[in-house]
Amino acid sequence: MIMVSEHEQAVFEAGIKLGALYHQFVGTPVSPATVSSLEAAMEQSIGLQPYVRTVCIRLDRAQMQENIFGYSELKGTMFSVDLVTRVGSACCHARLQRTRDYPLMEIVETYDEPGAAGN
Amino acid sequence: MIMVSEHEQAVFEAGIKLGALYHQFVGTPVSPATVSSLEAAMEQSIGLQPYVRTVCIRLDRAQMQENIFGYSELKGTMFSVDLVTRVGSACCHARLQRTRDYPLMEIVETYDEPGAAGN
Amino acid sequence: MIMVSEHEQAVFEAGIKLGALYHQFVGTPVSPATVSSLEAAMEQSIGLQPYVRTVCIRLDRAQMQENIFGYSELKGTMFSVDLVTRVGSACCHARLQRTRDYPLMEIVETYDEPGAAGN
Amino acid sequence: MIMVSEHEQAVFEAGIKLGALYHQFVGTPVSPATVSSLEAAMEQSIGLQPYVRTVCIRLDRAQMQENIFGYSELKGTMFSVDLVTRVGSACCHARLQRTRDYPLMEIVETYDEPGAAGN
Repeated sequence: MIMVSEHEQAVFEAGIKLGALYHQFVGTPVSPATVSSLEAAMEQSIGLQPYVRTVCIRLDRAQMQENIFGYSELKGTMFSVDLVTRVGSACCHARLQRTRDYPLMEIVETYDEPGAAGN
Repeated sequence: MIMVSEHEQAVFEAGIKLGALYHQFVGTPVSPATVSSLEAAMEQSIGLQPYVRTVCIRLDRAQMQENIFGYSELKGTMFSVDLVTRVGSACCHARLQRTRDYPLMEIVETYDEPGAAGN
Repeated sequence: MIMVSEHEQAVFEAGIKLGALYHQFVGTPVSPATVSSLEAAMEQSIGLQPYVRTVCIRLDRAQMQENIFGYSELKGTMFSVDLVTRVGSACCHARLQRTRDYPLMEIVETYDEPGAAGN
Repeated sequence: MIMVSEHEQAVFEAGIKLGALYHQFVGTPVSPATVSSLEAAMEQSIGLQPYVRTVCIRLDRAQMQENIFGYSELKGTMFSVDLVTRVGSACCHARLQRTRDYPLMEIVETYDEPGAAGN
């Protein structure tokens, strides 16, 4: 029988969401004029997944340099994501952000939120 | 030297956009509550690509059955897309829609639009 | 300052890899004749990512029903994945497999492997 | 009633395949050690799609610079693809290759191949 704590699962679920978000959307055509709609769609999409409590996505406009046709593509270093998952009363705040030119995913904090209503 | 007519290129570009749209977004978590934002983001994204004149995307809500966590994923048969590309004065209207349970991409019509301003 | 245990990070990294794998490859055209090459490419690709110790991917041939053009597309329920991540001496064995028609990702086990050489 | 020539459809199908290939696989982790398996999987996958006669994919090793974890990700400018589609006796040879730092898709040639067996 598998024993996994709520704490462990909250951490696991946070990882899933960041990996999913990244690999679903990297490569999407984007420009400063369209980026808001992409951010909104990504947030709403990831927000559907199990155990997601909040997700905030910001894509770096400064990296959206125009190619020869005047637009850009979403690449990993453009992402700034803050995500909180909750399993029972266990929460995990994780982040995706550019670090040494790498799109680093990391745990920011784990904590308990007593009285939380669950999933 | 390569000789490609504007007509041929308009058709080619229409194919590119439909293939891109499909494979970029298939698998995205979606539900009736979030589908509008996804449609908007997809239209704006594809609209950035070269030679796209108009694109209209409708995702079939009826196919968005809830999985055990209450959401669905974008699959190919959900797409209804009408797209017009234009290269010079040559236009191609193409479509992606469910046909015999397959997400069929096809040319609807090609035509010239004299006086069009180009790309 | 952020304090994350190796144990937590191993779990987090396992989640990332499963989310990434799923959303990178869902939608890929596949058939029983080509599935072995896809499994190999996916394993090698995910094996490059940080902290992955082993990954074993099996795609369910039985679900690869032919569409009107004689092939299929990779969908979530086809995946059977066993993955082990290691951060320091902390290991996480996680899994992706079809459960009640949902592609469920879950932690199988976490454990320590004393003397492990790290990442 | 829609009248599309075999010639037009061959061109359209070539566009679809290049758009699909690109957006399905961009973002995949890759390195010089794993790139051969990815090329093979991509060729076999695209080869399943309707009307594809031949496809040859080469990914540029020189662009696979190591990130802080020692691998790279597939990006658009790494692709060199030659593809031939055939609809009836009409063939389209199309290409995807880096041009002015853009992953340009273009028609190389269209031609008839009398006596071809069809799709």
